[in-house]
Amino acid sequence: MAKTKPGIPKGTRDFDPIEIARRDHILNAIREVYRLHGFRPIETPAMENLSTLLGKYGEEGDRLIFRILNSGDFTSRVDDQDWQNKNTGRLSAQLSEKALRYDLTVPFARYVVQHQHKISFPFKRYQMQPVWRADRPQKGRYREFFQCDADVIGTKSLVCEAEIMQIIDKVFSQLNIDVRILFNNRKILAGIAEYIGHPDRLTDITTAIDKIEKAGLESAVGELLQKGLSKDAVDKLKPVLELEGSNDEKLQALETLLAGIPTGIKGIGEVREVFDIVAVSPLHCDLEFDLCLARGLDYYTGAIIEVKSVDVPMGSLCGGGRYDDLTSIFGLSDVSGVGISFGADRIYDVLEAMNRFPDTTGTFSQVLAINFGQKERDYCLPALENLRSIGVQCEMYPEPVKLKKQLQYADKNYIPFVLMAGEEEMKKSLFSLKDMRTGDQEQLMLEQISDVLMKYIDR
Amino acid sequence: MAKTKPGIPKGTRDFDPIEIARRDHILNAIREVYRLHGFRPIETPAMENLSTLLGKYGEEGDRLIFRILNSGDFTSRVDDQDWQNKNTGRLSAQLSEKALRYDLTVPFARYVVQHQHKISFPFKRYQMQPVWRADRPQKGRYREFFQCDADVIGTKSLVCEAEIMQIIDKVFSQLNIDVRILFNNRKILAGIAEYIGHPDRLTDITTAIDKIEKAGLESAVGELLQKGLSKDAVDKLKPVLELEGSNDEKLQALETLLAGIPTGIKGIGEVREVFDIVAVSPLHCDLEFDLCLARGLDYYTGAIIEVKSVDVPMGSLCGGGRYDDLTSIFGLSDVSGVGISFGADRIYDVLEAMNRFPDTTGTFSQVLAINFGQKERDYCLPALENLRSIGVQCEMYPEPVKLKKQLQYADKNYIPFVLMAGEEEMKKSLFSLKDMRTGDQEQLMLEQISDVLMKYIDR
Repeated sequence: MAKTKPGIPKGTRDFDPIEIARRDHILNAIREVYRLHGFRPIETPAMENLSTLLGKYGEEGDRLIFRILNSGDFTSRVDDQDWQNKNTGRLSAQLSEKALRYDLTVPFARYVVQHQHKISFPFKRYQMQPVWRADRPQKGRYREFFQCDADVIGTKSLVCEAEIMQIIDKVFSQLNIDVRILFNNRKILAGIAEYIGHPDRLTDITTAIDKIEKAGLESAVGELLQKGLSKDAVDKLKPVLELEGSNDEKLQALETLLAGIPTGIKGIGEVREVFDIVAVSPLHCDLEFDLCLARGLDYYTGAIIEVKSVDVPMGSLCGGGRYDDLTSIFGLSDVSGVGISFGADRIYDVLEAMNRFPDTTGTFSQVLAINFGQKERDYCLPALENLRSIGVQCEMYPEPVKLKKQLQYADKNYIPFVLMAGEEEMKKSLFSLKDMRTGDQEQLMLEQISDVLMKYIDR
Repeated sequence: MAKTKPGIPKGTRDFDPIEIARRDHILNAIREVYRLHGFRPIETPAMENLSTLLGKYGEEGDRLIFRILNSGDFTSRVDDQDWQNKNTGRLSAQLSEKALRYDLTVPFARYVVQHQHKISFPFKRYQMQPVWRADRPQKGRYREFFQCDADVIGTKSLVCEAEIMQIIDKVFSQLNIDVRILFNNRKILAGIAEYIGHPDRLTDITTAIDKIEKAGLESAVGELLQKGLSKDAVDKLKPVLELEGSNDEKLQALETLLAGIPTGIKGIGEVREVFDIVAVSPLHCDLEFDLCLARGLDYYTGAIIEVKSVDVPMGSLCGGGRYDDLTSIFGLSDVSGVGISFGADRIYDVLEAMNRFPDTTGTFSQVLAINFGQKERDYCLPALENLRSIGVQCEMYPEPVKLKKQLQYADKNYIPFVLMAGEEEMKKSLFSLKDMRTGDQEQLMLEQISDVLMKYIDR
């Protein structure tokens, strides 16, 4: 075995214990809220058949899918002509028939179709797993990252949209992040496309609107002119996107503009109904009807949702929407669904920027027993077992090295208490407990130590 | 987008909510016990550099590693001559520079070396993540499966071996599986190899011993003769492997046989010391010194451990041992460690065979609120929010469909309680709560319902 300089692929990360505690703080909050709302977990394999994934994310997406090289004699299925021509598109399909999942939505659609006969609809599922993309790594963008999705599939009820608002509100309250929920509806955008005389150009229009936040309204409008929309159309569009006022004022103004365009009016009705249902249990955060919210993905057909941090400028922390036909690519049509996805990595960055992670002291080990030698060790070991039986996380330093070194270990590992027993303690059937945060040290009975630690872990 | 018949790669699995609840029952037990013993979690990326993995698992292992096809123009680095010759070994290295992790041990060794300057040794880490192997799928053997590892690295103290015994004992007690821990020491096997005159043939001898359980002693002995061991040597070996009696009797007999062979005597001393430390806090399960335990992996140098179910005939549920030089392949030598790995999938199969999974009723949703229409729905929604605030998992049926259909939904999803409110309840500011298990139904105030459900979730 040759020596290998240790490293990991670019865009991927190791997680140390503190990073895991912090990431779990986020994942647990999301999972808990999903479960409070009756969502059930599923998991799908890291590898999907390439045919399941290809063509679902656009051309750019296809290029970013990590493919698994076939095992065994992978050359046997390769066409010589394709090899001569370096036709990487055709070759990759011959060299590879599996790939790493690129998101959780397509695997979920595949799951629903594959298992449709044992699923009782409406099906509320959550799924929190890593996904992989061969994107160019940069700050905040990784090649392996966690997605945390929840969807309700098999019903068109807007109760589900309202529930998603409640979920978002709860997750960010729990994480102590102030957010605004931005909310729009694809039917309204379709109505607007019709209103400006271009019902056929919805995708171009949403793509342009999607860029307003980054590039500004003028740039978006410029893009539409370039793509062949008439000046008249663009002149009609701009004031719509610039509508101001309260949610209700904007909806009323739109209602006038889109009068006679059924799709648009339907979208407005849906937005109103979601506001009404949400109002029954008011949110802590702002819910804002935002006509400049479009979202890039083609499959949305109703509500679209994004969440922004109030304090930290950053892309959306959570996004989603309703789709009416996601599963038809796998042969099951007319199944409407609505879902959201929390971006755990961005939420991590926001919490870090605001210094709002909880204290991780004592997360892993709450007590270190000092090893003074065999006799003292064997006196302490049953005490540790006793503490474990009431849920205290604790450990014996494995070797009888110098006290200073053992205390340093406790310090470096954020262990808040140290347990010690020497001649004196053993004679009195006591233990010394040192609080590493204050330096205080007391001789106590094991039951007293249990009490101190129960109080500590219940804090 | 063409229709694709939905399916997943062979050897991989989807997990439905019940399967996840059951798998989590196992993973949580292992995680909790690891944490009770002061182990800290790390995670490593699914993809490692191919150079990190290759050559660590033997030739067969190298073949079973899933490789990631390079992105972009992957043909550019391929040597034409190698392509002509279909040299798949060389080609795969040119087509691929990353691969999916094959186990958690090599990534852990890589992690320790890469982050050695921020790790405070001894380092107690656990890691519970999936691994991937291009093995031929068969019953109980998957291409994606979970490993649950814990290691202490940076100390030779046998306190760690004893701690591993405690961990195994606790995990299986908690899972309600009766097990026997089998325990041996590579130094004893080395001593035996010397005793029979073949100190140079330790690998052949351990490989043969490793097969005794499946193929029997005679077959193992036959293999050794075939490999060129003398009949004299084999005649000396057989009675050693057939030693009977208590742990202490076997150790005493060995002590006589291996007198004058320092390695063997050292191994016996280590085994005795582990027994002594364990005896300070006696185990619930049997700990058995087993000379026929060898374990296949080359890197073990001290204790070796395996765990068997008492009731269900199956391979080992957990295994591990001490290694003295695992990290030297990455450039850090003289770092001794000891670790174990629980096989979550086999444990799953044992629990299933014995029908010992806990009841999963009410795991995901504890209350379904019946949707009788807008007014009733809006009366119930705040009550659900109220229940969520005390930790009750609950949901509103999204559409006002027939009661029967809604009750069926509760039934199929194992939801134990149904909340209903019609004219009468609303007038009295009450709710009807139906217990789906008994069929009992009562009109209650919200606080009373909270009490019933608190009791249910605390059960």
